[in-house]
Amino acid sequence: MKRYLVVNFKAYESAFGEKALGIAREASRLSSRLSKTRIILAPPILVATKISQVYNDVYLQHVDPVSLGSYTGFIPVEALKIEGVRGSIVNHSEHKIKLRDLNTIILKARELDLEILACADTPEEAAAVAALEPTLIAIEPPELIGTGIPVSKAKPEVITRGLEAVRIIREIPVLAGAGISSGDDARRALELGASGVLVASMVMKAKNPGEALRELTEALESF
Amino acid sequence: MKRYLVVNFKAYESAFGEKALGIAREASRLSSRLSKTRIILAPPILVATKISQVYNDVYLQHVDPVSLGSYTGFIPVEALKIEGVRGSIVNHSEHKIKLRDLNTIILKARELDLEILACADTPEEAAAVAALEPTLIAIEPPELIGTGIPVSKAKPEVITRGLEAVRIIREIPVLAGAGISSGDDARRALELGASGVLVASMVMKAKNPGEALRELTEALESF
Amino acid sequence: MKRYLVVNFKAYESAFGEKALGIAREASRLSSRLSKTRIILAPPILVATKISQVYNDVYLQHVDPVSLGSYTGFIPVEALKIEGVRGSIVNHSEHKIKLRDLNTIILKARELDLEILACADTPEEAAAVAALEPTLIAIEPPELIGTGIPVSKAKPEVITRGLEAVRIIREIPVLAGAGISSGDDARRALELGASGVLVASMVMKAKNPGEALRELTEALESF
Amino acid sequence: MKRYLVVNFKAYESAFGEKALGIAREASRLSSRLSKTRIILAPPILVATKISQVYNDVYLQHVDPVSLGSYTGFIPVEALKIEGVRGSIVNHSEHKIKLRDLNTIILKARELDLEILACADTPEEAAAVAALEPTLIAIEPPELIGTGIPVSKAKPEVITRGLEAVRIIREIPVLAGAGISSGDDARRALELGASGVLVASMVMKAKNPGEALRELTEALESF
Repeated sequence: MKRYLVVNFKAYESAFGEKALGIAREASRLSSRLSKTRIILAPPILVATKISQVYNDVYLQHVDPVSLGSYTGFIPVEALKIEGVRGSIVNHSEHKIKLRDLNTIILKARELDLEILACADTPEEAAAVAALEPTLIAIEPPELIGTGIPVSKAKPEVITRGLEAVRIIREIPVLAGAGISSGDDARRALELGASGVLVASMVMKAKNPGEALRELTEALESF
Repeated sequence: MKRYLVVNFKAYESAFGEKALGIAREASRLSSRLSKTRIILAPPILVATKISQVYNDVYLQHVDPVSLGSYTGFIPVEALKIEGVRGSIVNHSEHKIKLRDLNTIILKARELDLEILACADTPEEAAAVAALEPTLIAIEPPELIGTGIPVSKAKPEVITRGLEAVRIIREIPVLAGAGISSGDDARRALELGASGVLVASMVMKAKNPGEALRELTEALESF
Repeated sequence: MKRYLVVNFKAYESAFGEKALGIAREASRLSSRLSKTRIILAPPILVATKISQVYNDVYLQHVDPVSLGSYTGFIPVEALKIEGVRGSIVNHSEHKIKLRDLNTIILKARELDLEILACADTPEEAAAVAALEPTLIAIEPPELIGTGIPVSKAKPEVITRGLEAVRIIREIPVLAGAGISSGDDARRALELGASGVLVASMVMKAKNPGEALRELTEALESF
Repeated sequence: MKRYLVVNFKAYESAFGEKALGIAREASRLSSRLSKTRIILAPPILVATKISQVYNDVYLQHVDPVSLGSYTGFIPVEALKIEGVRGSIVNHSEHKIKLRDLNTIILKARELDLEILACADTPEEAAAVAALEPTLIAIEPPELIGTGIPVSKAKPEVITRGLEAVRIIREIPVLAGAGISSGDDARRALELGASGVLVASMVMKAKNPGEALRELTEALESF
């Protein structure tokens, strides 16, 4: 089974400028040594094409349900294809979208052979998301995001119930997120049945982001 | 099997004032003679309590994912309970909402024993909605709404595919909507497997709305 | 100079059912004895027509930038006219709207001879709102709303700077809001140059809402 | 008086990939020969940093009212500073925002010495926008956008009334937009008192975008 480490850069200071490029370089170095784990970086849209020159497995943090055309300040799904971006996170707890738009984005992405990681706050939302058939699903209880209290230890039942709710509908890899702060938290998520983790602050706010990436990938590889 | 006739008053001129009350009185008269069909009226929020003094099976057209408290210009789910409103339409094609909010509203309504009719544009959206377990689902291809071209004749496959997609997830009555303009269109929806119809302009823009209600209920009763 | 007491019922428990009607009856009794002060009640949309049967000076808490027609779950400005509602609050700190929509609503209301109380968080926003020429403006620093810390005492400069910013653009009565908890707070607002106050919790969460209304109107009348 | 040519790339096919870079190179070549006219390019956020490597006067098409921090899929105003982007269009007719957010964005940008071009559909909206003191204002009647019917000829009164409404509040350069399809349309806008034009399809959908840029800058320079 493939394992996933998705790093949401959010809009932290380290998500821009030289620091962001440094994280991408580190991911690039690490990635070549991994056999089971895929690292996906999700930088801010503004720097995504710069990051993808350094590391080739990049998602946006959001994409819009529009096509190429007369739209101002929106990112059409097709633009990812043209610019060499692999896919996008959507419906993150900090950027919730309409069910209709989620459906539109997933359909468009599938046609264009792009990937969508759709987030869900709860097992119920995860089930609804699964019905739309995204590439990946991440379950993140919003009350734990950014707290350092790992979902895999504080609310393991959200992961297990979420996995079950998704599996009834179809087979889609499910990542766990919120509060993941150590390799051990990531390993615990895999033990519960998750296919990987979605992290942000553990890497982006680390003194040494490369070290944090290493700790996480080691945990995922060695499981 | 129960049949449903849901009348969305929208914000047509006839949805307010004396005309709206006249439609409610007509529904009240008709309703007492029906054995299988339940008529649900969905007037604008502004007149919902007035309508429910005349006819007791009333839904709102939208409700907000909030509780009683410090909210301005939003309708908490609890308010329906206090004011004697049975439930609400949500996620109508003209009022799409976030997946998270849809989930919150359905959970709150279930706790309070209120009903939710969740709308979907497509079979995929209907499946996602079904995962959240609302009371009723309505499938309405937005391109047919208000056209007078009935979904049950122009796009029967949207209904049948929608029914199938919902059934895989769970048993929830599915209504068909968009362009329903005659009793025959309603009957055709039942033949395809729907549990009823969601109509608006056929009743609200009719010269004789009572006549339109009669035609629809006769078709639903006699199937 | 006219004085205004606007009571935003919000979605507090007391904003619905018998309690809301009781507050409206109290306002009705008080109102007949006032010579300078106009009491405007802003109940939730769901109960506005019921409240207006008891008290005839009612605003909605929000209205939508649409006309009569095919809209689901939105309240057209025209509906206020048909249903005997005098106007609406818009752009409240808990229900911020797009500048375009604010403009549309104010223009429509003016044509229909309806009133709009447009809210602003800051003096800058108040100036922008004034440019659109609503009937009334209310300035409420969001950080004080519901705290019981009165804007007129804690942040008097927001009121005075707001008044000044509005006056440069045009003459529109400006109300002060946020944290108003006593007649004295209301009087202080008038001393600063405001034409009245916008209150919510002081009345809606009072053990005796009638008593709170009396205290406020006495302060406004006697200034 | 300075003149402005702002090119909104929108999300046209030519706004991405090699075509977008070609337009930026053309702007760079032209720009060095201009004495009075400033060309600002507004590419999609996804390619803005790539474009700014080729041409140094770049705006985003939208920016969010947030700071650096825990935000997913939003662009903080500070990010423009870090990434060498000069400013942003906001409140475009295709991307309308809340008045509160407009105010927040303009205040943040001013602190950071970044520029904001705020759009308005109507003279009234332009006046409201002026009260918030953006760097530039553009007036674009939405019904003419993308039509090829130039605002400066079809609705000159929108420009003149807009200019007047803005001037009463403060001195801010006002651009005209919507339907500008020739150098002559641009010149006509200057004759009416505008400080420049905001264009999109004339350049982005041109067989020869460089030619379109030349025609526009010649008209602006020679006035």
